[in-house]
Amino acid sequence: MEPKEGFDCIGYAAHDESGFLKPFKFKRRNSGPDDVVFRVTHCGICYAEVIWTRNFLSDVQYPVVPGHEIVGVVTKVGSNVSNFKVGERVGVGYCAMSCLHCDSCKEGMDSMCVNLATRVFNAVDVDGTITRGGFSNIMQAHQRFVVKIPDALPSDVAAPLLCAGATVYGPMKRLGMNKPGMKLGVVGLGGVGHMGVLFGKAFGLHVTVFSTSSSKKDEALGVLGADAFVLSKDEEAMKAQHNTLDFIINAASGSIPLDPYLLALKQEGVLVLVGAGAEAKFSPHNVFMRKFITGSAGGGGAKNVQEMLDFAAEKRVFPLIETINIDYVNEAMNRLVQNDVRYRFVIDIENSLKPE
Amino acid sequence: MEPKEGFDCIGYAAHDESGFLKPFKFKRRNSGPDDVVFRVTHCGICYAEVIWTRNFLSDVQYPVVPGHEIVGVVTKVGSNVSNFKVGERVGVGYCAMSCLHCDSCKEGMDSMCVNLATRVFNAVDVDGTITRGGFSNIMQAHQRFVVKIPDALPSDVAAPLLCAGATVYGPMKRLGMNKPGMKLGVVGLGGVGHMGVLFGKAFGLHVTVFSTSSSKKDEALGVLGADAFVLSKDEEAMKAQHNTLDFIINAASGSIPLDPYLLALKQEGVLVLVGAGAEAKFSPHNVFMRKFITGSAGGGGAKNVQEMLDFAAEKRVFPLIETINIDYVNEAMNRLVQNDVRYRFVIDIENSLKPE
Repeated sequence: MEPKEGFDCIGYAAHDESGFLKPFKFKRRNSGPDDVVFRVTHCGICYAEVIWTRNFLSDVQYPVVPGHEIVGVVTKVGSNVSNFKVGERVGVGYCAMSCLHCDSCKEGMDSMCVNLATRVFNAVDVDGTITRGGFSNIMQAHQRFVVKIPDALPSDVAAPLLCAGATVYGPMKRLGMNKPGMKLGVVGLGGVGHMGVLFGKAFGLHVTVFSTSSSKKDEALGVLGADAFVLSKDEEAMKAQHNTLDFIINAASGSIPLDPYLLALKQEGVLVLVGAGAEAKFSPHNVFMRKFITGSAGGGGAKNVQEMLDFAAEKRVFPLIETINIDYVNEAMNRLVQNDVRYRFVIDIENSLKPE
Repeated sequence: MEPKEGFDCIGYAAHDESGFLKPFKFKRRNSGPDDVVFRVTHCGICYAEVIWTRNFLSDVQYPVVPGHEIVGVVTKVGSNVSNFKVGERVGVGYCAMSCLHCDSCKEGMDSMCVNLATRVFNAVDVDGTITRGGFSNIMQAHQRFVVKIPDALPSDVAAPLLCAGATVYGPMKRLGMNKPGMKLGVVGLGGVGHMGVLFGKAFGLHVTVFSTSSSKKDEALGVLGADAFVLSKDEEAMKAQHNTLDFIINAASGSIPLDPYLLALKQEGVLVLVGAGAEAKFSPHNVFMRKFITGSAGGGGAKNVQEMLDFAAEKRVFPLIETINIDYVNEAMNRLVQNDVRYRFVIDIENSLKPE
């Protein structure tokens, strides 16, 4: 459902399961007293954009305007908003609203709302209309879900932090994986995985990258600064990792076997799943030695994301990005599917999305 | 390998994959300065006895004398032993030795020794001979692995606590699932599962039993004192459990789906696997809301087991047992396989195992 009244926006939308994105005009509902309205300058492209433009979960209401790593400049604030000012740089991640009353929301962990957070796109908004994401010129969100971009973070660099960054920082901080000298493993060197390496090094951890492809070795060690690289199909090398790691972030998408990584954990070690896969399998024997499997969706709430941004600014945890114009978005989506990006596409909305 | 010299014992052994147990004479190695030797009075029958008499894991060296919930009376102590005296009642669980130097052993969590604890049967002992379990008249173990049976615990009742009891008490205590009012789920109402219910009630928890069979309802609520019963194949009833439980002990053997139980957990909730299954499967989405899967083998170390026994004695956490003579052991094993026992067989070794 489109809002009956509201303000005009332009963006890029997919109209069917091909996921092909093209220019699209739509209305956003009129802003309310708690809303922050901002001109979008940059938006990252996460694998979730592929999932929901191509309808992998059969839950898309086309047309869909994706984008949930959104940075911009405030143009208007509601009457209840005192923390944000016109002209300030702000960001919004994948959460546009949550139930506000479940245990998760009460502790500020909005992205893990028990009643399911409202995504910034393809979800039902407070007024019953469908949310539209950041592949657009104007965005708005309830102030609770808006963060400030620190001065030291360029807007394009800040965008991927809002999802990929928050996704790894959240569980690392929450589960105590931020103490210098601890040993971190990272599986899957994409947009999220590379942030795991960068935050790991910023926390002073020893970081080991696991990959199915030896071509990633130089990148992992040279470009990202990991301490070790293990080819995951090399059984001897994997065996040498047994009982050595405190924490593993599994950012690989798809169904991958968990046992080799459970074996690599120390006692009390934690394997955190942050990549979407249809099914995970493991042998119960491999958790009997006090090993843990958990997962994390989003970064928690705006407070956690703000803390992450401030830390990233201070420690210069800058995602490696390829900035593109919006008319390149379909090619970028295809390249993302082929894992052909080092490591995140960011759309320069400000300079490339113009009224036709 | 049999010890070249040592003392004569009698017991019951399986000689092939039928698992059929019959009288067997064997030697145990001579006791050392750290050993506690005791006359066995009682021994519980755990599903592990089935696994290793029938060679499910293809690792059995026949003949095998099973039994790892062993209670008896001390007959001799080594010169280094000051904590145990002749005539005292003692117990030994499944750990006969461990590496003593890994992180787990250093913190006294011997059963989770990184280099794998030596089981009391079918494992290689310090002298290279094969360990023999508690289906026998005499037992010995290094003092580190021996516990005292509190006066308030009858010996037959104490036996199942040494494995089944320790298996549930260990993770409950370690992971903080012992605070009155917390909500516990128990899956699989066998020897281990029923101890989960009893310890749960002793800790003051709200306990919900999940079962595939409605015939278990009266037992769960009436006999064991659980607060609620859910038929796990009733989808509506399972749905009503979503996000309600702090902790679930899955004591079911075999490969069961984890998703329904992950959904039943609250945020930060923990699903603990203590039943052996070939494979566990789940959807990663079901752990994204900060839910945890872990497992536990044995009860930790003797210190933990002693604490559990003392708690069980004080709170009268008494396993429900069916005491049998050893000549009934083969029938008991068959009944155990068919889950036809409420809830643990204990062999009265003292009164039924005699030289022929």
